[in-house]
Parts: sequence; structure tokens; C-alpha cells
Amino acid sequence: MVNVKPLKSDTAAAERAHEADHPSSLVAQFGADKPLRLDCGIDLAPFQIAYQAYGQLNADRSNAILICHALTGDQHVANVHPVTGKRGWWETLVGPGKPIDTDRYYVVCANVVGGCMGSTGPSSTNPATGKLWGLDFPVITIPDMVRAQAMLLDHLGIDKLFAVVGGSMGGMQALQWTAAYPERVFSALAVACSTRHSAQNIAFHELGRQAVMADPDWRGGRYFEDGAHPHRGLGVARMAAHITYLSDAALHRKFGRRLQDREVPTFSFDADFEVESYLRHQGSSFVERFDANSYLYLTRAMDYFDIAADHNGVLAEAWRGTRTRFCVVSFTSDWLFPTSEARAVVHALNASSARVSFAEIETDRGHDAFLLDVPEFIEISRAFLESAASAHGLTSASR
Amino acid sequence: MVNVKPLKSDTAAAERAHEADHPSSLVAQFGADKPLRLDCGIDLAPFQIAYQAYGQLNADRSNAILICHALTGDQHVANVHPVTGKRGWWETLVGPGKPIDTDRYYVVCANVVGGCMGSTGPSSTNPATGKLWGLDFPVITIPDMVRAQAMLLDHLGIDKLFAVVGGSMGGMQALQWTAAYPERVFSALAVACSTRHSAQNIAFHELGRQAVMADPDWRGGRYFEDGAHPHRGLGVARMAAHITYLSDAALHRKFGRRLQDREVPTFSFDADFEVESYLRHQGSSFVERFDANSYLYLTRAMDYFDIAADHNGVLAEAWRGTRTRFCVVSFTSDWLFPTSEARAVVHALNASSARVSFAEIETDRGHDAFLLDVPEFIEISRAFLESAASAHGLTSASR
Repeated sequence: MVNVKPLKSDTAAAERAHEADHPSSLVAQFGADKPLRLDCGIDLAPFQIAYQAYGQLNADRSNAILICHALTGDQHVANVHPVTGKRGWWETLVGPGKPIDTDRYYVVCANVVGGCMGSTGPSSTNPATGKLWGLDFPVITIPDMVRAQAMLLDHLGIDKLFAVVGGSMGGMQALQWTAAYPERVFSALAVACSTRHSAQNIAFHELGRQAVMADPDWRGGRYFEDGAHPHRGLGVARMAAHITYLSDAALHRKFGRRLQDREVPTFSFDADFEVESYLRHQGSSFVERFDANSYLYLTRAMDYFDIAADHNGVLAEAWRGTRTRFCVVSFTSDWLFPTSEARAVVHALNASSARVSFAEIETDRGHDAFLLDVPEFIEISRAFLESAASAHGLTSASR
Repeated sequence: MVNVKPLKSDTAAAERAHEADHPSSLVAQFGADKPLRLDCGIDLAPFQIAYQAYGQLNADRSNAILICHALTGDQHVANVHPVTGKRGWWETLVGPGKPIDTDRYYVVCANVVGGCMGSTGPSSTNPATGKLWGLDFPVITIPDMVRAQAMLLDHLGIDKLFAVVGGSMGGMQALQWTAAYPERVFSALAVACSTRHSAQNIAFHELGRQAVMADPDWRGGRYFEDGAHPHRGLGVARMAAHITYLSDAALHRKFGRRLQDREVPTFSFDADFEVESYLRHQGSSFVERFDANSYLYLTRAMDYFDIAADHNGVLAEAWRGTRTRFCVVSFTSDWLFPTSEARAVVHALNASSARVSFAEIETDRGHDAFLLDVPEFIEISRAFLESAASAHGLTSASR
């Protein structure tokens, strides 16, 4: 077993100096000479990407896994969150001995461009004006996020990923990686996602954006100038989204029609039902950790996402000749990204003669299942990565 | 054929005098001597109910049909709406020669108590203060709405309904009628509804209420004092509700990912997608015709509704010994009131040895199907009412 120090550990150490805002993250900075070319036609420069890294890059740099986070996720996939104090959002999957084994793999997770946890986004400073971007920040896309991640990997000296892994918006990024950089991805695990947002999903996102924009404290996106924040609108947006993350069955099992702390209804607009209290809590806790404009930008990126549209409307074209190994996972009760969407991805991969496994996992936990301890999902992830590692020459002995 | 003038036509004519706010509606007024006893324990008095009536009550007063409206519906079921100028909301089902044939039946449709189209509600004047009620208006329930309708029928001299008919919240009222006044209902047609609101439905309603209350123009429910109205919050609430009224398939068929008036996305937060533009329109047109506080009260009434809870948790108890004829209708793509909910009603009716027919209608149009021209639904309604009319002695010759 060759257990080397990460090749870029000096880079990483140096980057800890740039952590003013997010003390536990590394930050890669890209200057005017390394602009991020955006789909909207704008070159974004300078910009920075905040990321976390776990484990050690091996000698031949072949054991890197990139994890892509979901809409309201961030880079803190397997460490205590610096703002909320909660455990990493995917510790069911990532950590020592876990399917994404940080004793074995070099694991990178970066805050997406447009986000609000240290990567450049609408709450960053616009160098042209010296003021925060707000809505002057260019609209970004899922391919833009992936392009920025590719620049981060260049910066880290990683040519090829052993695996790219993500769920929901993270799964969109994982699939985009395989379409945009097939030669850089040995395997891809895409969970609870699709290659395009449905009309219903766009509708829910538009609802959330309108809720934010309806809040007078949003102030046309320049709320920060007065120290305001559209907490109420963003809270409503989060409540709406949260309903879509659960299934009807999960809500029924968790709450049903149970009243909270009372025997009979109050005949008022208090949160009589447990489900009301739960949703209000989801809304109010979210606004403590998330920027309203970032929410607009990231939902927009998901809405615009459509891999097929970038390939003459033929999804299979996106993967023609691919050698990447795929695993696509859906959950039976996920109505945001139902199995039918996952099947469409698998069919297109089959049409491209790609090597693909597909698992639909029986659960009543809805879209959120990808973040939860669903044993069958964890085991399928482990088996897929184990098999891919073996094919990639990443035996336990060589790690 | 006995074609009499409606027995209460004098009442109706006199009531046209009380139509200041809603010129095309009749208004029944109940004084301090006829309070409406509410489930919350309060006696509401005085109060009034605005209603529309179509057709003629026959000599033995046996041909009356009560139509109960849905959350954002009103009494204008089969006439041009005085505010929007649109056709009656159920003209597919109600009118001369339609299944609810106004040449044959005497059809009454009343604005629910708590509503905002002429019946007493939060935008009415509180006689104790001389000011508008606002949130001082007592919380009302579906049984309260039905109790008020029963008082209206007393007032109109109608002891027994040939039929009570409703969809969604209207269907809840129809079912409540059969549980509360079994001897007054010969037949009941309950469409796209259930006897209790699910946790997910409560969640969506709570989202809508929070959107309204988050709007600073709501002002704790006293917006009218400054001539304000929480248009933005109510618009967001309506957008959320509207998504639930359609199916994923209907949204896909109507809009898919089509852009409106443009070939390529604008890379902005404009309504690029047709579905965004549609939702924004739904939100903004709704606030022109609906009162925000009424929206809070009526959603709350639906959330509280639970017939079984009023019968020791056993739904079948609600209908023990009933002689009412039931027809329960659901739509395959209705995810607000899915077929499983309708089946639970039918099972309970079967357990009560009730006479019940059940139809699940195949359509991709979602919950909204009950308002649309879905031929199979129209025909089933016609057949059910025809058969019931025959059993009730309402032959064509005797009308």
C-alpha cells in the first residue's frame, strides 16, 4: 500500500490562508488570466471555488472522487458544518470505511459557482464596481458549475476522476461531467436526478423565486446594502421545496393529522398540526444559512439544465462512445425526480452502448431518501464503487 | 308535467334588494334570533348567505339540488361571473339539458360562510365593533358551512334535497351533508375529495397561508384599514395551489420545457418558460377576485375537516343506517385527492351498507379535471342523477 501525502498538499495548505469567510474550507482562486467561460457568454474573472478535501491522493493520482452537492447543500459533505454545527450532509456515504471511503479515496467536494459558502456567487464582490454582485451576477448553468469544477481539478493536478458522485442537483452535475468530460471520468454515480428539469419542477422553482422576490426585503436583489434579508420570502420558498422533498407517504407516516402539544384544535392560525410546525421550522432554520440570491441562481441553473438540448435533442448523443461506467439510482417515492426520469437516462445510456447499472430503491421517504440512511442505497453505492475500483486497478493493496 | 313557479320566488325577489356588493346574487339574512352555531363554540349572528338559484322548485319541492363550491369557487356556478366576466365555473355540468338540468331541477349554489362573495366572512363588518372582522372572525369548519347551508334551505322552504353535489372542498361539504343531515339528502355526488385532508395537503395549505402572512401588506389581517391587500403573498399562495391542481403529465403536455416568445433562454429571471408565465398569470389574476383573509379561513376549514374524527375515528359510523344514494368520483392523475382517498370513502360507505357507486376516471388533467369538460365524468354524473331521479319519482313527465 502506497500511502502518499496528497500531491497538492502545499496548494491546500496555502489556501487555508484564504478562509476568512469559511474557516474550515480550502479556497482555489482563479485570476483574470483564468476566466470561467459561462454559457451566457460572459467570462467570469476573477473567481474562486471553496472546497473540502478528505483522504489522500495516491501516487498515480487515480483515486480522486468528486462529490457534487445539491441545491441547498455545500462542500461540507463529511465534516461538521461551520455554520449549523450539524454533521456532514452525506456522512451516510462518505467517511472512513463508508462506500466513499476517505481512507481509500481522495474526496473533493466544492461549493458550486453561484453558491454562498465561499465560492463566487451573487453575494461576492463584483470587482468592476467594488460592490456585491446581487442580480448583476451572471446567470449560471449546471455546465458552468461543472466547468468551474474541472478548473479546480486542473488546479489540484487531477486529470481524471475515479468517480463523480451526486444526488439531485449534484446528480445533474455528475451526468453533465460525463457528457462534457468523458475522458476525465472513470465512473459516475447519479442519484435521484435527471438530465432535464420537468415542467412541474420548473413550476415549483418559479414559485420559490416569486416568493423570494415578493418579499419587500429582497429589494430587487440588493437587500445586503441595508443589512436586510428576505427571510420571510426565502422561508416560504424553502417550505414549498421541502414539501417536494418528502413523499405523501412520508408526511403521513411522520405527521399524519397529529396535533402538536394539544388535544383539540385551537380554531386559530397557530401551527395546530405537527406538519405545520415542522414546515415553519424548516423555513426559518434554512434562512439562517442560505443566501436568497444564491437560491434564485441555483434554482435557475436547474431549470435551464437539459443535456439533450445541447445534443440536437437526442440524449444518447451526449454519451456516444463513452467509456465511463454509470450507476443510476432512483427512489420509488421520489416525485421530484421519479423513476421514469431515471429510466430515460438509462435508456439513452443503453442507446449509447454505455456500461450502466440501474437501481430503483423501494422507500417511502421521497426525494430526501438520497440524503438518508437507506441501507439498500448505501450498499448499492458500495458495490458499484467497489466494482469500479477493481476495474480501475484500485485494489485495496494498491491504495 | 307540473311546472310551478318556485314556492319561494317572493323571498328570492325580495332578496335582490340586498345585493349592493354582489348585484347578481340573492342574499339570505339571518338575524340575532337565528345564530349560526360554529364548531369553535361561537354563535355567529347576524350573518348572511349569498346564493344563486336556477330553475324552478316543483310543487312537492322534491327537485332541489344544492351545489357546493370549491376553495376558490363561489355561487356563480352557471352564470357569467360579475367580477371576472367569465362563464359559470361548472357550466359543463349545470344548465339547460346538462346533467344538472336547470330545466328540470331547482339548483341552488351558495357562497360558503367565511367566503368573500357576499356571504359573511372575515371581510364583513363585525356588528360588535362596526369594523371589518379581519382575523377576529371566528375560525369556521366544513360542518359550519354545511350548517349555514341547511339554514338557507330552511329559509327557502326546502326540507329535503334531491341531491347535493360538489367537487374538492365542495365534495367535502357534500359528504358532510350526508353525515350531518342524512334524512335531508336523497343522493350525493362527491367528486375529487375525501373526508379528511392529508398531511401533504395540510402542508400545501400552510405554505399558502405563510405566503399570505409573510406579505407586509397583510398587516396582521387588517390590510383593508389602509386600502392595502397582500397581493404578492396571495399570488404566491395561488401559484403553489395551482401546481397541485394540475398533474405532472398535464403540465408536461401543456408546457413541457417550451420557452415563450423566444428561441433561446434570456439568462435572466424573466419568465423564460411558458409554465412560469402561466403561473404568474394564475397568481396575479386570482388576487383581483379573492380576499386574502378568506383564503386563510377556507384553507383552514379544509385542513380541520375529518369526518371520522367526529365519529370516534370510525368513518363508517358517520353513515350507519344511511339511505342516501352515493356516487364517488376520482381522477387517476389527481394527486391532491388521489383515488386511494376516494376508495377509503367508498369502503366506509360499503361498511355502512350504503348504496354507492364509484368511478375512477382516467385522465391526465389532475385535480382540475372536475372543473373541465371530461366527457366520461359528465356522463357518469348524468347517469347517476338520472337513476336517482327515477328512484325519487322525478320522471321527466312529473317535473
